[in-house]
Amino acid sequence: MSKKIRCGVLGLGRLGYWHAENLARKVQDAELAAVADPLEGRAEQVAEELGVPEWSQNPDDVLENPDLEAVAIVTPTSTHGEMIKKAVANGKHLFVEKPITQTLQEADEVLEAIRNRGVFCQVGFMRRFDLSYAEAKKRIEMGDIGKPIYFKGITRDGQTPPPDFIKHSGGLYLDFSIHDYDAARFLLGAEVTSVAALGNVVEKQYVKEFHDVDQALTYLTFDSGAASDIEASRNAAYGYDIRGEVIGTEGAIQIGSLQHHDLKVLTKKGGTHDIVPDFPSLFQDAYLNEMVSFIECLKNNEKPLVDAYDGKKALEIAVAATKSYQTGTTIRLEPVRS
Amino acid sequence: MSKKIRCGVLGLGRLGYWHAENLARKVQDAELAAVADPLEGRAEQVAEELGVPEWSQNPDDVLENPDLEAVAIVTPTSTHGEMIKKAVANGKHLFVEKPITQTLQEADEVLEAIRNRGVFCQVGFMRRFDLSYAEAKKRIEMGDIGKPIYFKGITRDGQTPPPDFIKHSGGLYLDFSIHDYDAARFLLGAEVTSVAALGNVVEKQYVKEFHDVDQALTYLTFDSGAASDIEASRNAAYGYDIRGEVIGTEGAIQIGSLQHHDLKVLTKKGGTHDIVPDFPSLFQDAYLNEMVSFIECLKNNEKPLVDAYDGKKALEIAVAATKSYQTGTTIRLEPVRS
Amino acid sequence: MSKKIRCGVLGLGRLGYWHAENLARKVQDAELAAVADPLEGRAEQVAEELGVPEWSQNPDDVLENPDLEAVAIVTPTSTHGEMIKKAVANGKHLFVEKPITQTLQEADEVLEAIRNRGVFCQVGFMRRFDLSYAEAKKRIEMGDIGKPIYFKGITRDGQTPPPDFIKHSGGLYLDFSIHDYDAARFLLGAEVTSVAALGNVVEKQYVKEFHDVDQALTYLTFDSGAASDIEASRNAAYGYDIRGEVIGTEGAIQIGSLQHHDLKVLTKKGGTHDIVPDFPSLFQDAYLNEMVSFIECLKNNEKPLVDAYDGKKALEIAVAATKSYQTGTTIRLEPVRS
Amino acid sequence: MSKKIRCGVLGLGRLGYWHAENLARKVQDAELAAVADPLEGRAEQVAEELGVPEWSQNPDDVLENPDLEAVAIVTPTSTHGEMIKKAVANGKHLFVEKPITQTLQEADEVLEAIRNRGVFCQVGFMRRFDLSYAEAKKRIEMGDIGKPIYFKGITRDGQTPPPDFIKHSGGLYLDFSIHDYDAARFLLGAEVTSVAALGNVVEKQYVKEFHDVDQALTYLTFDSGAASDIEASRNAAYGYDIRGEVIGTEGAIQIGSLQHHDLKVLTKKGGTHDIVPDFPSLFQDAYLNEMVSFIECLKNNEKPLVDAYDGKKALEIAVAATKSYQTGTTIRLEPVRS
Repeated sequence: MSKKIRCGVLGLGRLGYWHAENLARKVQDAELAAVADPLEGRAEQVAEELGVPEWSQNPDDVLENPDLEAVAIVTPTSTHGEMIKKAVANGKHLFVEKPITQTLQEADEVLEAIRNRGVFCQVGFMRRFDLSYAEAKKRIEMGDIGKPIYFKGITRDGQTPPPDFIKHSGGLYLDFSIHDYDAARFLLGAEVTSVAALGNVVEKQYVKEFHDVDQALTYLTFDSGAASDIEASRNAAYGYDIRGEVIGTEGAIQIGSLQHHDLKVLTKKGGTHDIVPDFPSLFQDAYLNEMVSFIECLKNNEKPLVDAYDGKKALEIAVAATKSYQTGTTIRLEPVRS
Repeated sequence: MSKKIRCGVLGLGRLGYWHAENLARKVQDAELAAVADPLEGRAEQVAEELGVPEWSQNPDDVLENPDLEAVAIVTPTSTHGEMIKKAVANGKHLFVEKPITQTLQEADEVLEAIRNRGVFCQVGFMRRFDLSYAEAKKRIEMGDIGKPIYFKGITRDGQTPPPDFIKHSGGLYLDFSIHDYDAARFLLGAEVTSVAALGNVVEKQYVKEFHDVDQALTYLTFDSGAASDIEASRNAAYGYDIRGEVIGTEGAIQIGSLQHHDLKVLTKKGGTHDIVPDFPSLFQDAYLNEMVSFIECLKNNEKPLVDAYDGKKALEIAVAATKSYQTGTTIRLEPVRS
Repeated sequence: MSKKIRCGVLGLGRLGYWHAENLARKVQDAELAAVADPLEGRAEQVAEELGVPEWSQNPDDVLENPDLEAVAIVTPTSTHGEMIKKAVANGKHLFVEKPITQTLQEADEVLEAIRNRGVFCQVGFMRRFDLSYAEAKKRIEMGDIGKPIYFKGITRDGQTPPPDFIKHSGGLYLDFSIHDYDAARFLLGAEVTSVAALGNVVEKQYVKEFHDVDQALTYLTFDSGAASDIEASRNAAYGYDIRGEVIGTEGAIQIGSLQHHDLKVLTKKGGTHDIVPDFPSLFQDAYLNEMVSFIECLKNNEKPLVDAYDGKKALEIAVAATKSYQTGTTIRLEPVRS
Repeated sequence: MSKKIRCGVLGLGRLGYWHAENLARKVQDAELAAVADPLEGRAEQVAEELGVPEWSQNPDDVLENPDLEAVAIVTPTSTHGEMIKKAVANGKHLFVEKPITQTLQEADEVLEAIRNRGVFCQVGFMRRFDLSYAEAKKRIEMGDIGKPIYFKGITRDGQTPPPDFIKHSGGLYLDFSIHDYDAARFLLGAEVTSVAALGNVVEKQYVKEFHDVDQALTYLTFDSGAASDIEASRNAAYGYDIRGEVIGTEGAIQIGSLQHHDLKVLTKKGGTHDIVPDFPSLFQDAYLNEMVSFIECLKNNEKPLVDAYDGKKALEIAVAATKSYQTGTTIRLEPVRS
């Protein structure tokens, strides 16, 4: 049996727990050796449940643990910058949830640190690991639709988050559309040159208090000549709705059907399939696949499939979108990859 | 403007009225010149509504009218044989609803009369003129699925007909499955060599009184080596459900989706499309198309796309199916086309 | 038989011919009594084909014909204003293709003329008469999705029109998206308060010469608090793609599936349905239905389902969208219905 | 951490390896402690790969290992009877692949042995653990379609197995349709009273040598008054096609859509989704779920969700179907559950 990668997980909220569980039980070449969470008792509880030998309330205990090769940072976004820097300083390889940092300045700092130390860093854009998005990319690369010229993305959720969540969400462009910004770069294989964002509060009035919107629209142009529109909404009363389309010069690809179970009930009222209710139902496999890829790339000394630069670019677009919405102007971006 | 074919319609029930309306208003090269129905006042009422110059309670007035070139026979099945013979004797071209006659002996008689007189006769298997069935045939002929080796047909309706209808329906094999028997011959391009039928009363107990079933299954073999299963049901509480599949050596074709309007309503309960509610909703265009084809073939001296022989063969299979169900044995048929 | 409405058709291009054919053959209570087209011989040819007693190269012969009650104006947009004014002056009821006029000033003039003379005027937004759009409206009014808060429209075509067509098209917002602007007003039941438009040339470089785009995006806000995004494209290599979605507070409705025939071919390469190839394939019935409604409303002294005001509002949005695209600013509209 | 169930796996072919892998890595409360396979080196290789401490070429080493609580029997059908008896004699709990035994007599023997010793036995009808089939069952029990009155099952595969496989397959009724026989009992909640089977060789002539068919049809009646038709085919050139429908008195449920990835490629040739290529692609999760259920039920002292009696009943129907096909008669079954 080959050697396993010893990992730690920082932050054991819903998503952190999943990453921990995947590393502990389902990713063959990983070993979950330490977990940390500031909430009293949480790390111990998870450690016991998943059979993890070390746990702590203090993330530094994990970050400085010399036995670990890699850490997954699933803490609040405001702490990402600091956590990444400490991890890098300790020579750890990194998985970090999106967005990579809270500000572009921080993103540049951590990119430089990562580059200097030569550690591996993967960012949590799990859609790239969803089988349908991955298949779409493959088909585009096979030339099935000619040259890609337009991406249309939809991210809608039906849950009403509490005001406190909205307050710290960074706004709808950063919280939701950032996934589509990354998907657009991924599927079009191009860099964004301009960002124009529009939006409104069409239902959930309480988000106004935080200068946020519940319905957003972003228009992007790309250095390849392609363009893109990306819609986000907190008002999908019917379920969790993630769809994408890529128009190419010779065809198009549509991703996502909303259907949950592969069955339909027929009555006089019509033929009904159930709808994907929430993001775990849709992306459970994608979360596992991204962690499998993280560990495999690490083991094989390959570059991560979504790196810190991708994390920074998506953040850059989201920041520009927010600013565009606020100012009513189109924001130009510098597309050149450093 | 080219000369129009002068037509008469016999029988003005629901289906007869449609044929009359199509001939009067929608089939460009037809002129509806006479209608007859035994129900007092019915022919006059329809004549007034559709602008038909002649009407009668007596079908002979139409059958013997020297100004008519063609008649559509939409009277009860028990009268088909007599009507066809009179029409042929008067040199009329013919459209006759399915089944062509009530008995195989009658069918042979009318086939001989038609052949001797050299008149044109089309039988009302309108599915052949439904765009989806017609497209399926075209795809098969283009070789899209290789050699066709299996046909699977479904005919389900959700309406509960009155006992008197069941009594005169001829049984489920003759009333429903005869459409799929014809579709099987049409799509497979082959003749039936054996018929085995099974069936049961699974819900509508009152059909037992007439020794009928509400759920039927027929298994056919063909001289090409192909086979087929054909299900019929009176128990589709959810709507009108017509589907077909042809398996070929290199692929398959599926016909029919049940969806009515091209929209879906999404709520927490699921994504719902409405279902085709009844046969007019599904086959309205097919009924028009078959009448257009009838008139066009007549005008152009071409053979009908579904002729009296097709009518007889479908009847033969339906009669054999009924007998197979009653006796529990497989019935062999003589496949050679005369 | 009830009295028929005597109609004339002006302009016998592809669309004009359809309207003529529908009025001549398929709309029960209409009689096509006169046609005109400036192209030598065209009116006579169509008159002969459809059995129309009067024809002319000069539209005035139709507009001033005292025997006609109604005219359908299917001439180039640049002539709409003049044609409408003459028709109104002659007391004719009107069907006019979209856009109602070329400029907003003209639209105001014809609206005033129509109001003063009290004639009936229907504008050719045929999507309202498409069964799926009509059903969507009905479902929204039945409360199936709660209060409508967002409309998402797509109009994509795959055909590459000649440069001369682009030159006179009025631009993509006016040529394509105007249908969705009307659909948005129709389905949301609200008036537009602001228009922001973005766009680009992503494939068909030759449209740049005419300062046009081949991919457009419009963002609308409404006086009800709703919003909308509307995409248009000339780059759908795969077919003719018309879709709409309405998000409500309790659900959503999706219109359009792209599927043409109701069948699927299954091979090793996948399951394939054919795609709606062009607009006649999709909207043939809608064009007939709008003409049936035109004649029925006229006969019954009911208001048209899409009136001149609707025609003006859609034009107003399209003009604003074009200006917004050109100036990079959001255009405010006065939402109050006069 | 709770105690794990120590398991052994007998037979390490493709399916045996999956069960082993699931028990070793994915089923939380299981521990794979021993594996056996008669092929030289196979057990050792798998043991090394999955970290299994004990392995052998001799199944008895596993069956008699006192440290094991449960064994999974994935050996050839002809050995099932003997393996089960030995396992029971050693007090092991059992998971056994379908069919439970090769003959009904053997089935009765092992049922008696299991009952006498009081061990737990689950049979590998994994469709019951497929999320769509399980959801269908739930919907039926919730009354969504009224009383179930008809089940329609399809099992089609496109692969051409080698002659030697056909020779030992037991025939198409036993090899394929047995899954639908079990699904019919499961979804209808009733016992079979009669079996009529038809079939033919429509493409793969070489199966004739083994008196087998490549296209089968079975008609079942049930003690609840329901009926069922079940088709099986080796000729699905397009992929792996598993579908089911249950008609109820108030509606119907359709299971299965053939679609693999949740995306569609649109080109001029149509809209194409890929088709489920093979059974691992469709039932991977079901195989895991059945093993999770096996271990959970064992731990919680609950009865298995598919027990030895279910295994025997499905075998009984398959044996009757084969006999019915051979004799051309309908076979009556004794429906009473002992």
